[in-house]
Amino acid sequence: MPFDAITPADLDPADPVGAIAAAAKRCSNWGRWGVDDVLGTLNFLDEAKRREGAACVRRGASFSLAQRFDMDGPQKGWRRRTNPVHTMLDTGTDAERGTQGFPHGLGGADDVVFMPLQASTQWDGLGHIFDHGVAWNGRRAGEVVTSDGDLVTGIETTAALFAGRGVLLDVGRAIGTDGELPDGFAITTDHLIATIEAQGETSRVGRGDLVVVRTGRLSRARRDLAEGRGWGDYAGGASPGLSFTTADWLHGTEIAGIATDTWGFEVRPNEFDVAFQPLHQVAIPNIGLFIGEMWDLEALAVDCAADGVYEFFLTAAPIPVTGAVGAPVNPIAVK
Amino acid sequence: MPFDAITPADLDPADPVGAIAAAAKRCSNWGRWGVDDVLGTLNFLDEAKRREGAACVRRGASFSLAQRFDMDGPQKGWRRRTNPVHTMLDTGTDAERGTQGFPHGLGGADDVVFMPLQASTQWDGLGHIFDHGVAWNGRRAGEVVTSDGDLVTGIETTAALFAGRGVLLDVGRAIGTDGELPDGFAITTDHLIATIEAQGETSRVGRGDLVVVRTGRLSRARRDLAEGRGWGDYAGGASPGLSFTTADWLHGTEIAGIATDTWGFEVRPNEFDVAFQPLHQVAIPNIGLFIGEMWDLEALAVDCAADGVYEFFLTAAPIPVTGAVGAPVNPIAVK
Amino acid sequence: MPFDAITPADLDPADPVGAIAAAAKRCSNWGRWGVDDVLGTLNFLDEAKRREGAACVRRGASFSLAQRFDMDGPQKGWRRRTNPVHTMLDTGTDAERGTQGFPHGLGGADDVVFMPLQASTQWDGLGHIFDHGVAWNGRRAGEVVTSDGDLVTGIETTAALFAGRGVLLDVGRAIGTDGELPDGFAITTDHLIATIEAQGETSRVGRGDLVVVRTGRLSRARRDLAEGRGWGDYAGGASPGLSFTTADWLHGTEIAGIATDTWGFEVRPNEFDVAFQPLHQVAIPNIGLFIGEMWDLEALAVDCAADGVYEFFLTAAPIPVTGAVGAPVNPIAVK
Amino acid sequence: MPFDAITPADLDPADPVGAIAAAAKRCSNWGRWGVDDVLGTLNFLDEAKRREGAACVRRGASFSLAQRFDMDGPQKGWRRRTNPVHTMLDTGTDAERGTQGFPHGLGGADDVVFMPLQASTQWDGLGHIFDHGVAWNGRRAGEVVTSDGDLVTGIETTAALFAGRGVLLDVGRAIGTDGELPDGFAITTDHLIATIEAQGETSRVGRGDLVVVRTGRLSRARRDLAEGRGWGDYAGGASPGLSFTTADWLHGTEIAGIATDTWGFEVRPNEFDVAFQPLHQVAIPNIGLFIGEMWDLEALAVDCAADGVYEFFLTAAPIPVTGAVGAPVNPIAVK
Repeated sequence: MPFDAITPADLDPADPVGAIAAAAKRCSNWGRWGVDDVLGTLNFLDEAKRREGAACVRRGASFSLAQRFDMDGPQKGWRRRTNPVHTMLDTGTDAERGTQGFPHGLGGADDVVFMPLQASTQWDGLGHIFDHGVAWNGRRAGEVVTSDGDLVTGIETTAALFAGRGVLLDVGRAIGTDGELPDGFAITTDHLIATIEAQGETSRVGRGDLVVVRTGRLSRARRDLAEGRGWGDYAGGASPGLSFTTADWLHGTEIAGIATDTWGFEVRPNEFDVAFQPLHQVAIPNIGLFIGEMWDLEALAVDCAADGVYEFFLTAAPIPVTGAVGAPVNPIAVK
Repeated sequence: MPFDAITPADLDPADPVGAIAAAAKRCSNWGRWGVDDVLGTLNFLDEAKRREGAACVRRGASFSLAQRFDMDGPQKGWRRRTNPVHTMLDTGTDAERGTQGFPHGLGGADDVVFMPLQASTQWDGLGHIFDHGVAWNGRRAGEVVTSDGDLVTGIETTAALFAGRGVLLDVGRAIGTDGELPDGFAITTDHLIATIEAQGETSRVGRGDLVVVRTGRLSRARRDLAEGRGWGDYAGGASPGLSFTTADWLHGTEIAGIATDTWGFEVRPNEFDVAFQPLHQVAIPNIGLFIGEMWDLEALAVDCAADGVYEFFLTAAPIPVTGAVGAPVNPIAVK
Repeated sequence: MPFDAITPADLDPADPVGAIAAAAKRCSNWGRWGVDDVLGTLNFLDEAKRREGAACVRRGASFSLAQRFDMDGPQKGWRRRTNPVHTMLDTGTDAERGTQGFPHGLGGADDVVFMPLQASTQWDGLGHIFDHGVAWNGRRAGEVVTSDGDLVTGIETTAALFAGRGVLLDVGRAIGTDGELPDGFAITTDHLIATIEAQGETSRVGRGDLVVVRTGRLSRARRDLAEGRGWGDYAGGASPGLSFTTADWLHGTEIAGIATDTWGFEVRPNEFDVAFQPLHQVAIPNIGLFIGEMWDLEALAVDCAADGVYEFFLTAAPIPVTGAVGAPVNPIAVK
Repeated sequence: MPFDAITPADLDPADPVGAIAAAAKRCSNWGRWGVDDVLGTLNFLDEAKRREGAACVRRGASFSLAQRFDMDGPQKGWRRRTNPVHTMLDTGTDAERGTQGFPHGLGGADDVVFMPLQASTQWDGLGHIFDHGVAWNGRRAGEVVTSDGDLVTGIETTAALFAGRGVLLDVGRAIGTDGELPDGFAITTDHLIATIEAQGETSRVGRGDLVVVRTGRLSRARRDLAEGRGWGDYAGGASPGLSFTTADWLHGTEIAGIATDTWGFEVRPNEFDVAFQPLHQVAIPNIGLFIGEMWDLEALAVDCAADGVYEFFLTAAPIPVTGAVGAPVNPIAVK
């Protein structure tokens, strides 16, 4: 199937249900790795790919692709997603005052956090999104995720796997103005391909790769913050992002995962009259694709723009909270 | 200074204060990287070391060194350290029932966690332990860690750095019985050196390496669990671990970090009549050393024993909770 | 219907399903207050009853019936019920050190809590228990309590109502040995009636009353604690408590609510071969009865034993967490 | 000392330090109840006062003075004060689907909350505010509140005591326009006295009373909410409230506690050029006064305006979180 099975012009804004059903049918990976599969597109990321990733380490420069996890984040409480709340169990102030009760001059600090697992830089697990009550690989949603968490595809099943070749597609720089795409800009397959071509050979994308797409949305949010306007609608509001029509590219490239510097991966507002994250509905339960959100690609992108090398060894190991449908991650790119 | 400046026989069990002071004096790195330094021994981990680490990727096999984060963990509430509590904000059961209110058949699951930052696999930050009210590099503890967290050496300062050459020292297999050291066994410098010699060339340890030491304590805890005896005292109780006398080796090797499969890194009970984690008091505030605890080295150790290769590319990127004095991590070893 | 419709001798230990169905049929209050009712037996507690309660204030002595909420509680993590974790956002140590940044010498302390709503002294809400997937007043469980909480009978609906005449039935003192009933002791209707008779006129129980039943189980737990044995199985283990056969008394007396000094209200082990809290299954979804657990009746009971007066004004206002199926409460009895 | 020791005209806006020191000197209760006292003005609330309170129950009508505790509250994260986050451990949806594993058709729902203790309706404890590093009764702040909480005056010490005669001073209706005072309106002693006079005999205020002051600020916030403008700055922003100059009235009346319908009790902005809650600095550490905030006085005030009776039996029992410097409460007024 061609990557460009459909273009935005083919979409009927009044019919997300039909578009989703058609894309799901074209792109479904159900059964591809057996009825018991819990890994989806991570099956594409094999040992050869990890060796290929390691070979991308040329200088030894490392970049964290995580935003900081703290109360100053973008969350505004939508569906109870707060920012992380970090509190201390013991402090240096107490230790210095000498009231902790430890022997031989020992003092300690300790701490705790309360946070939605998708409050900041994270991977969506395969149990995060359902299509008409059905989860990845055709399981009924209620058999997969109950109040006890994701009993089948919990993020812990992926704990060892997110290490391989990463590729940055800096669409913001390649297509945008001053390195940024405007809110509402739908990144199409053509844009992705044009970016790859503009960036050159190190940007090729294929089976098992971990792709990170920079839109520039986080640059804009940071500028707003620095200039006193706050995070605005970074979390949940208008944003550049992938077009619904990239489903076939996401499927056909056989990538293992994809992440962006935005809150929601997809273009917002979505490309239908009444919709909410329709590409997720195809990508997660039907393709079995791992999606990362709120990644910080700024420093990496500057470096890639400088040396023209867009591939790297990427480790993006989520904290294996048992049964989690998403998990915080501090991805490390090494060039 | 020789690594074997002291041996356990040199310790006066009645005088931890004196022993700590002497070791702190011998091993201090204060000022070594300037008065403003916040990275301690991470300064040893440079780009060359990362290239050396990447060169250890021979097969592309990857291993997660994290335990699972859930309520079934070993914590028992000491100083309010509970196990992680994971709860759902939305479930598949709800989605399947069709009560979530999303359009076009979309359903979702979402979740939240409450956890002490050192509940499971973690790095201690440099603000975790103080020596007589003084933190790493000579700062007063109360200037570093207040109720607002670690204002100076918060774990976020290390976000991009924990990627390099990892070395497994499987002391349990090299020195122990059936692969395990008994509780209370103090691993000395001689034991570490003997393990390196027994394991061979890939086990050499030097400047900038990330060393992981397997004692077998987690194997024993897992066997107890499997046989219905629960975690017992894995968290906080008796355990094999590093002898206080390894301080000079930790300092002299110029390693960037070290982690074990135990709750507390050091041998427990500690080697003094009345003491609590005296090696921490030397290692963290005086050496500026990063210590990892509760790492799961089981699968990696089996693999290393099988192929005789004990080095690997290790990425161990903590979740950058701003101001944290410790942080959860899912370390990934790639061989 | 007589209160003693059945006795323990009538129960078939092999047939909890049959016993529950029969009791539910005899005791159902469904529809009694209309199809939209959310208050159940709180409908019995009217203004006249509140005046009667206020008239019980003779001396002005007040008693808190709450246990303390802290990490030293009895919870052991069953179904993720931890003890409350209380952490500080600001401390006096920081304030005294002068690092908080407030003007004119102001300092502050502030705090946060993470707690299961039934971690300590609490009321069960009407959405807490279901009978074959059906909630209070015949609603389907999935229409009442989703991941968003109890959308119908959330505890906030009761916020103003728990104030009226309270009656202590100190079954431990009336029937037990040294003031305590042994674990596994099933309190029957006969025991309740005998206690009322032994205590005298102020112990009469009728429509709209709030009844508190002391078994002595908390006395025993406190003694165990004081003697270094810990909480043991106070949370979830063997305990005296109400017999399944008291369902008809609970229904027929038309009380507004009932609380005990035990973890689970009912006798434990339950009176069937394989069962879990069968009286709850009748009382909450079928009778619509409010059940309180883990109340501290010790000081009140001593006072009542001393002056022979067992009635008082009871205010037991739950924290109105919107959508909660249970809520912490600090009940105050004034005699 | 007269209640009107000073008036707003006496304040030097440039000198909060001087004004606070002078008021603290005039109003200090240090030592009044001994050096070990932890109850402050609660000492004024005796058994006679509780009998007087109970005698105020004439009709039996009850009113909850608590706002609801949920994510839709006014908090905006200032100093990590989020709104309460309520999540489910078990749901009715799961129970109805039959996946919970309980016997005999039992199903259950259970829940957990994470909340700052002052997120909604609450009492400030005596450890909440310090004056130049000194807490109630002259103790050093660092001896009272560490990371382990308030070791001396924790809210649990008050668990049984907040029950007595309540008095509503509806300053909004007595002095304001359409029942509300504008933001920035400082309620003076004269305003309080005028309100008492306007409301009549049942509004007299004296030793041991619990006073609730309605400003109308919550009415305005609710109207804003209803009209789609959100909470605005209810939490922390401009507000009517008590003038700094009421310190002498708060001290001289010998009331046991006082609460308002605002976030911060005091008028905001405060009456000095650069200040933050200066009246707190006098009232809590120096007078030892209990202050309640964010109480919902709307329904009670309508009732009082209708029947002209402003006194009632008030029970306002905080959840006794051990060591808390503030605590949630569901106050119940019974008339």
